[in-house]
Amino acid sequence: MMQPDSASSRVLERLADVVAGRRGADPEHSYVARLLARGNDAILKKIGEEATETVMAAKDGVPERIVAETADLWFHCLVMLEFHGLRPERVLDELARREGLSGLEEKALRKARAREEKGE
Amino acid sequence: MMQPDSASSRVLERLADVVAGRRGADPEHSYVARLLARGNDAILKKIGEEATETVMAAKDGVPERIVAETADLWFHCLVMLEFHGLRPERVLDELARREGLSGLEEKALRKARAREEKGE
Amino acid sequence: MMQPDSASSRVLERLADVVAGRRGADPEHSYVARLLARGNDAILKKIGEEATETVMAAKDGVPERIVAETADLWFHCLVMLEFHGLRPERVLDELARREGLSGLEEKALRKARAREEKGE
Amino acid sequence: MMQPDSASSRVLERLADVVAGRRGADPEHSYVARLLARGNDAILKKIGEEATETVMAAKDGVPERIVAETADLWFHCLVMLEFHGLRPERVLDELARREGLSGLEEKALRKARAREEKGE
Repeated sequence: MMQPDSASSRVLERLADVVAGRRGADPEHSYVARLLARGNDAILKKIGEEATETVMAAKDGVPERIVAETADLWFHCLVMLEFHGLRPERVLDELARREGLSGLEEKALRKARAREEKGE
Repeated sequence: MMQPDSASSRVLERLADVVAGRRGADPEHSYVARLLARGNDAILKKIGEEATETVMAAKDGVPERIVAETADLWFHCLVMLEFHGLRPERVLDELARREGLSGLEEKALRKARAREEKGE
Repeated sequence: MMQPDSASSRVLERLADVVAGRRGADPEHSYVARLLARGNDAILKKIGEEATETVMAAKDGVPERIVAETADLWFHCLVMLEFHGLRPERVLDELARREGLSGLEEKALRKARAREEKGE
Repeated sequence: MMQPDSASSRVLERLADVVAGRRGADPEHSYVARLLARGNDAILKKIGEEATETVMAAKDGVPERIVAETADLWFHCLVMLEFHGLRPERVLDELARREGLSGLEEKALRKARAREEKGE
């Protein structure tokens, strides 16, 4: 018999449902509703901010902060995806498609070679 | 009857396994091995780069590019986590812990209030 | 008697002239010509990258690297300005306009208050 | 006879003086004093934020916003430099040193070649 979803399974999908459910909620009581209402630039500014905080946490090398900041970054990506009517499943499918890493590595190596040709 | 794991389920965990397996592989043949060998700053530079590309894709609003750039960003987060000996399960658990969003919203509102007090 | 321009005086303006002069130069021999030819996204990706490197250098606190990375960041801002037909004088004028800092501080405090009202 | 400094000349140096003068001022009345008091991470977070806003403004291509966001980015770089006891003259000297661009281009090409060798 299969286990029910563990905490870590499908959490991005479930969180995306919650984010989607916040659309149109009262901005006074919901951070997500407010962020969605403020629009694309406000959301993207948060992604820049959280990416910077993730980088700083990883410079400091404190595991708890790395985990917390990466969670913040991924969470704001979910808000951005919802703003654009996209589901995290699409991102995960894209990652799965590359999963053997042959795909990803190929892509990265292809890019690297293209850069080399451009002498970049 | 439950479906076996769909492509999107546990893909981050499986991808993290692949990334971990690249540790010590030949940098000539593996992008991930090379990135891990180059170290923290090289990995974090990629996170800054991919975050910027995600922001630009979302400014353009082209769904395929948003999905692809977000996948690149999350993938490089997995490499960063592996570099620090961390698993994506920890990030997903952190997100699950906040899942009701009450947690996340509370945190965001708490931060906002703290900022207000500081007059930031 | 006044000194002629010191090295640090008007260097941004002179550098902007050099950047502008690279427009249409052979991309094989000029990094700036190649970057301008590759366009807005390529230039902006560099700004994201250099900003991340500036942040990492400042985390490490090594003065030489902070100076070098900030120089890289400002330099790529000059390339971005040139791409959009803008001169650094406009940025410097904007900064001068705020110079008493009353302007800047006012703006920052105004923004902070607006944020507080939004409960952000 | 030489002109007195135009608005755009030495504005970074003068602004750096103003920023330095804010050290230890009342955080209630000075945005810069508050930012300096909050420390390195708070300042660097602002740099990540302003870099993201510069990128978004340049994506939109609105000249006034590009100028304003670049000014914000450079301004927060001045605060960061001050936090680390550094003067903008050092950054400008570094840029002047590369001014023929031979230096800068050489550096960029050298980096590119190094990257090529690494097959990045």
